[in-house]
Amino acid sequence: MRRKAERQIGIQELAERLGARLVGRLVGSAGDAVLSDLATLPEAGPDDLSFVSDPKHLDAARESRAGALLVPEGVEIAGRPCLVVGNVWKTLLTAFDLWYPDEPAPEGVHPTAVVDPAAELGAGVSVGPMSVIEAGVKIGAGTQVGAQCFIGRDARIGEGCLLYPGVRIMERIQVGRGVILHSGVVLGADGFKYEVIDAMPVKIPQVGTVVIEDGVEIGANTTIDRAFLNETRIGMMTKIDNLVHVAHNCRIGRMNGIAGQVGFAGSIQTGDGCILWGQVGIRDQAKIGNRVTILAQSGVKDDIPDGETWFGAPAMPVKEAARIVAAQRRLPELMKRVKELEKKAGTE
Amino acid sequence: MRRKAERQIGIQELAERLGARLVGRLVGSAGDAVLSDLATLPEAGPDDLSFVSDPKHLDAARESRAGALLVPEGVEIAGRPCLVVGNVWKTLLTAFDLWYPDEPAPEGVHPTAVVDPAAELGAGVSVGPMSVIEAGVKIGAGTQVGAQCFIGRDARIGEGCLLYPGVRIMERIQVGRGVILHSGVVLGADGFKYEVIDAMPVKIPQVGTVVIEDGVEIGANTTIDRAFLNETRIGMMTKIDNLVHVAHNCRIGRMNGIAGQVGFAGSIQTGDGCILWGQVGIRDQAKIGNRVTILAQSGVKDDIPDGETWFGAPAMPVKEAARIVAAQRRLPELMKRVKELEKKAGTE
Amino acid sequence: MRRKAERQIGIQELAERLGARLVGRLVGSAGDAVLSDLATLPEAGPDDLSFVSDPKHLDAARESRAGALLVPEGVEIAGRPCLVVGNVWKTLLTAFDLWYPDEPAPEGVHPTAVVDPAAELGAGVSVGPMSVIEAGVKIGAGTQVGAQCFIGRDARIGEGCLLYPGVRIMERIQVGRGVILHSGVVLGADGFKYEVIDAMPVKIPQVGTVVIEDGVEIGANTTIDRAFLNETRIGMMTKIDNLVHVAHNCRIGRMNGIAGQVGFAGSIQTGDGCILWGQVGIRDQAKIGNRVTILAQSGVKDDIPDGETWFGAPAMPVKEAARIVAAQRRLPELMKRVKELEKKAGTE
Repeated sequence: MRRKAERQIGIQELAERLGARLVGRLVGSAGDAVLSDLATLPEAGPDDLSFVSDPKHLDAARESRAGALLVPEGVEIAGRPCLVVGNVWKTLLTAFDLWYPDEPAPEGVHPTAVVDPAAELGAGVSVGPMSVIEAGVKIGAGTQVGAQCFIGRDARIGEGCLLYPGVRIMERIQVGRGVILHSGVVLGADGFKYEVIDAMPVKIPQVGTVVIEDGVEIGANTTIDRAFLNETRIGMMTKIDNLVHVAHNCRIGRMNGIAGQVGFAGSIQTGDGCILWGQVGIRDQAKIGNRVTILAQSGVKDDIPDGETWFGAPAMPVKEAARIVAAQRRLPELMKRVKELEKKAGTE
Repeated sequence: MRRKAERQIGIQELAERLGARLVGRLVGSAGDAVLSDLATLPEAGPDDLSFVSDPKHLDAARESRAGALLVPEGVEIAGRPCLVVGNVWKTLLTAFDLWYPDEPAPEGVHPTAVVDPAAELGAGVSVGPMSVIEAGVKIGAGTQVGAQCFIGRDARIGEGCLLYPGVRIMERIQVGRGVILHSGVVLGADGFKYEVIDAMPVKIPQVGTVVIEDGVEIGANTTIDRAFLNETRIGMMTKIDNLVHVAHNCRIGRMNGIAGQVGFAGSIQTGDGCILWGQVGIRDQAKIGNRVTILAQSGVKDDIPDGETWFGAPAMPVKEAARIVAAQRRLPELMKRVKELEKKAGTE
Repeated sequence: MRRKAERQIGIQELAERLGARLVGRLVGSAGDAVLSDLATLPEAGPDDLSFVSDPKHLDAARESRAGALLVPEGVEIAGRPCLVVGNVWKTLLTAFDLWYPDEPAPEGVHPTAVVDPAAELGAGVSVGPMSVIEAGVKIGAGTQVGAQCFIGRDARIGEGCLLYPGVRIMERIQVGRGVILHSGVVLGADGFKYEVIDAMPVKIPQVGTVVIEDGVEIGANTTIDRAFLNETRIGMMTKIDNLVHVAHNCRIGRMNGIAGQVGFAGSIQTGDGCILWGQVGIRDQAKIGNRVTILAQSGVKDDIPDGETWFGAPAMPVKEAARIVAAQRRLPELMKRVKELEKKAGTE
């Protein structure tokens, strides 16, 4: 958890700590500006360090009251104290460590937690109040399990994970290293599978698992179902937002970015580096290639080749979708024109 | 929590308690009708008080077996005992207090709850079993914290709030007065923000907060993310339904009504008095004016001016959207007509 | 909970246990194959029993390395050891019981659970750690309540139910027999109902209940709101997936299948045997007939008669919707053709 640290840093010292080149008018107050926090351009005051992460923010930067501006090479703001760096976001991470240092939860198991003696906790693991850890669970070193979490029998959690309060991990689920799970995440509920036997819907046991690879982050109240047999897998470094539904047997690739309320039906595959915007839905069995982008609310029923951007319901390549959307807006007018032609042709 | 109170009330006394004018045929049984519950028109029986909240329910009212009918001025049902009032809904609130009085949870902290000594609880606060309240938390007088809730370090909860079981409020989140949070609500999970640094998606710390203003109600399993810097804000008296996703840095106005499964991307602003129907999605940065209505499932990518009603994906003013929807249904026929014209013109 | 049982079974014995007819080349290794697990066709190895549930999997079956194949009558795979049965899925359930037997939670109340003395637990009920069961609750024999569940005052849970960790059931909610509730399910949060009184949105008390009939299964983080008055009802054997929103006063029929992220507005009725695909949204008050299918992401604003399949937003019968979708893809071309005709007609 990151917490605000009260600290004043002179602009000169700050430049050193951030490995930045200090430029701009530094006479008087600006030169010995003392900074105590980070803020966005519109909200920054004289005590704040702000930043220009995109040239389109240049006007906002000029208007900003920030005491200093973190800027990329070639984007000095005339007459303003600027800290010039190679990569603004990378440098900001250092600034966050100065003013919002990460403070891990205290090591050890809270007395109210129920940890089965047959569970193995690595060095420095912390387990919050009211959490329940069943037999056969293994948790890697340095992992923080928040309050009121549940980790079911024989589950594996890697090193350096962060589980926020109320995360629920069912039996035999496997979570890699450095995974962040937000409150209300459910890993390993049963997949949704029924077969009609003797005219009744009968539940088909779901005995597979879920595998969450290293560096994944999963948002609040997102649910990832266990496989029917074998596994549901979320690839390395993939980031999933809130209230997303991943059905059984999906295989999500590496470094995907999946926005809020996206829904994956069963057995979908995505490649690496895909971006899915909010509320997208994908049909079961669909195969999505590498580096595919799917725009918001799209409904995908077809496979998508590598590198393409799709949109619409049903989804199609974005260029085609855009042409159709544009044409639709002219549709009422088109109807009138056809009527006109019919008049002329006397075919009314 | 409201609970059924077993009580019989004569229709005359009821009229007095509700400040209603008693009209209609009251000889015999009807006149000394005794009422013991509230019910809707189709389900009401002779012991029930029912109500006509809308003229379109007049037929249902005539057919209803209700022992008495709460009606607005000018809507007496001939030959039925009617309690005539100025505002049916306002009067119903009094009727609810008679038969379903609100029974607050018992004051005090349940012995199984873990409340940090450095938390401050106001007068009459109740904390349910298995709840966890961390250091620096301040909770206002009369607030009820249900079972299994989590309130993180330095969070502020105002007076007279109601937290149902399993609400999770992260560090430093601020909740106003008279706020109702239903089970599974998560306030203050990290916003969804990554930047590609050295070819890898890197998490950008989310150190801002969430501010929930007075009188807000938030539905089950809804998630509201904390801001990157500064705050995500839900305006006074705004009501949010279940499974809604509000991303970081949104600023939702006052008295908005937001239906189930709506999704807000980052940094959206809405004005006051907006109504969003179910499953609407809104693009990041969008500015929605005051008193805007957005119909169900719409996908909003543009800003919307004050007072407008929009629909569609992509969303547009409802009149235009309706024309297009109507035209689309005639599209196959239009194709045939164009084919006809081409035949005639010999351009096939 | 089903758990893997380590057991080796000879193919001959397996055939007997499954009541299957053993056919195919059985000389040498195949004949005395020993099987130790279930697997899908592509993942099966020589020690696995796999199955052909659909003729379209015949090629996969021929390529499978499975030690034996469970097949329906008339679908023997030449030269492979096949177990021929009348109903593959039905027989698979027996196979699951061999290798993944169901292991109920230990009977009794965990010492950390808080169970009100005025709650009644049937024979063999298990209550997991940190669960809270309030006064007046009745739980039927053999029901398993997982860790960290909440069951509110006067709620009724039938026999043989399975509540996964973190299920929350509010006051007076009624759950039938053999119901499965996955983690994060919330039954009985307040319906979303406000009336404007004196220019302010005022909450209307929600004092009705939720009734879950026998054999229903509800997915992770799904929310089902309590009624305004009377009840919200989920019919017998209906199966609901994750993150579904059912608003107050809905009456869902029997044996419905409702996929992930579907949203029901208030007072909707569905008949029996309906299938709703993912992310469908339905308007309040809509009446959906029996055996209706609604395809993914559809937005339903009209009532739907028995037996129909609808699609689209707004939804319509699928044949009409398909014609329109097809026509839309040709819309840009149609525009060109009309332009051509106008040229010829000199009406440009």
